[in-house]
Amino acid sequence: SRCCATCAAPPGTSMPERHARAIQLAAAMFERDTAVRALDITIGDVAPGRATATMRVTSAMVQGHGTCHGGYLFLLADTAFAYACNTDGPAVAAGADVEFLAPVHEGDLLLATAQERVLRGRSGIYDVTVRRGDESVLEFRGRSRTVGAVRPPPPG
Amino acid sequence: SRCCATCAAPPGTSMPERHARAIQLAAAMFERDTAVRALDITIGDVAPGRATATMRVTSAMVQGHGTCHGGYLFLLADTAFAYACNTDGPAVAAGADVEFLAPVHEGDLLLATAQERVLRGRSGIYDVTVRRGDESVLEFRGRSRTVGAVRPPPPG
Amino acid sequence: SRCCATCAAPPGTSMPERHARAIQLAAAMFERDTAVRALDITIGDVAPGRATATMRVTSAMVQGHGTCHGGYLFLLADTAFAYACNTDGPAVAAGADVEFLAPVHEGDLLLATAQERVLRGRSGIYDVTVRRGDESVLEFRGRSRTVGAVRPPPPG
Amino acid sequence: SRCCATCAAPPGTSMPERHARAIQLAAAMFERDTAVRALDITIGDVAPGRATATMRVTSAMVQGHGTCHGGYLFLLADTAFAYACNTDGPAVAAGADVEFLAPVHEGDLLLATAQERVLRGRSGIYDVTVRRGDESVLEFRGRSRTVGAVRPPPPG
Repeated sequence: SRCCATCAAPPGTSMPERHARAIQLAAAMFERDTAVRALDITIGDVAPGRATATMRVTSAMVQGHGTCHGGYLFLLADTAFAYACNTDGPAVAAGADVEFLAPVHEGDLLLATAQERVLRGRSGIYDVTVRRGDESVLEFRGRSRTVGAVRPPPPG
Repeated sequence: SRCCATCAAPPGTSMPERHARAIQLAAAMFERDTAVRALDITIGDVAPGRATATMRVTSAMVQGHGTCHGGYLFLLADTAFAYACNTDGPAVAAGADVEFLAPVHEGDLLLATAQERVLRGRSGIYDVTVRRGDESVLEFRGRSRTVGAVRPPPPG
Repeated sequence: SRCCATCAAPPGTSMPERHARAIQLAAAMFERDTAVRALDITIGDVAPGRATATMRVTSAMVQGHGTCHGGYLFLLADTAFAYACNTDGPAVAAGADVEFLAPVHEGDLLLATAQERVLRGRSGIYDVTVRRGDESVLEFRGRSRTVGAVRPPPPG
Repeated sequence: SRCCATCAAPPGTSMPERHARAIQLAAAMFERDTAVRALDITIGDVAPGRATATMRVTSAMVQGHGTCHGGYLFLLADTAFAYACNTDGPAVAAGADVEFLAPVHEGDLLLATAQERVLRGRSGIYDVTVRRGDESVLEFRGRSRTVGAVRPPPPG
């Protein structure tokens, strides 16, 4: 049976291995990720090219207009992006474009969903949506660069 | 004598008033800015369309690759942007494009310099550079939207 | 039966009307669109929040490196975006972020596919991919602003 | 005496050579640049990290709203960017962020001014403003990648 949308491969192929490896890489990264653990961000749904991150807005994140600092919304999206783009090996964020769609308040629970859009040579593009319930509050497009050797295509 | 580059106006004009108002608005905003004060960010050099923000990278900002989480670099740039674009009245960040140029480490002292590039109707564009010493580590372009009434041009 | 992915509505609702209106609006816009017709761009698959545009690269589009000028690749993506974001009434492009993924050559046939990602108040975000066959050569994210009255939600 | 703002070097240094080389590279590039010459775009003020491009809007550039197609405004900005980022050797556009600030009409004369903001390893960032007289109608930030060998720093 199929593993996930990304790993939609016939039984016996190497795809589920990629998925297992993505989960292992994310767990090892989270272990060392002081910044993300300090904010009580949780990582979930890791798969090749995908990850989610969840955060609750605290009073320490509120800026001068009484709403959540955009920097923390970006940080949550950037976190989901970082876990998604590292699922196939080390990569770094080169840049991002972000659009703030709605003010966010103390106590709000936010879910960021990152999904690879395209990966070509060393360059990747990932789309991240941050939602509060059903509502999109931030749209983020991240640009990644693979570090070290470029991953060979998985064996058949 | 002239007040600053932005306020380069002949004596007796209203420009220095704009500068004094910008500083007052920034001080009032900082008073309520829990997020920025919690990270020991300081605001400086506020003038119409301009502001700087300074932050030292702490161990709590380090992510899984052992460098500063890009979210905190963005947060610092976004802070300088927010203070710069509020100098003429209430405005909000609509979006931004950001480029990460170099890894940043625990203990690094960062200076973000925000400068209005263009302001047209309700839309503004601000350029922010984050530097470590002489080196640019992040380039940020912010898009703002003015809130409430559009400010009339200052009286002659 | 359902009209399209966007118009996935039970029979008897107003959704198919929206689709018919989108097609009418696009046809009227194309009629006046000198720039697009001068480049032999064709518009297709118009539906609420969606449109495609097709263009063949001519010798007049080749720049100093011997490949298609990025401006024409952008123009094609921007065209699909413009038709997609006008399907519910007049809107203008406020801005865009674009990533060039591969060089394009004279004679190449390109297909741009635009899809609404989010629409909130007057602001919309649309994703456009330009493909040559199966290969993505450009990724574009457009930001729109609705002009005139904001469209009321369609009657039930 | 100094050559230009970029080449502000003491007499006897290699800086003016860089400027002369930039002008030569631009002239050779323009020679092969069918796309730019077909639109009667002129290139000017080439210097290390800088270039300008001028274009008059023709009837063939007008889209369905009766104003200049945003694709042609982008193309003009992208052209100034391309000439500026090739002044130190071959480079390609990796991406760009663009903001449309005002509608442009048939007959308008536009001037795009590109200026290097930062160059680090193979990555460069260039700011381009397109003006109609004194008014900024488009702001563009381009991201470049150097092709081939990275240029060594000029000899003292």
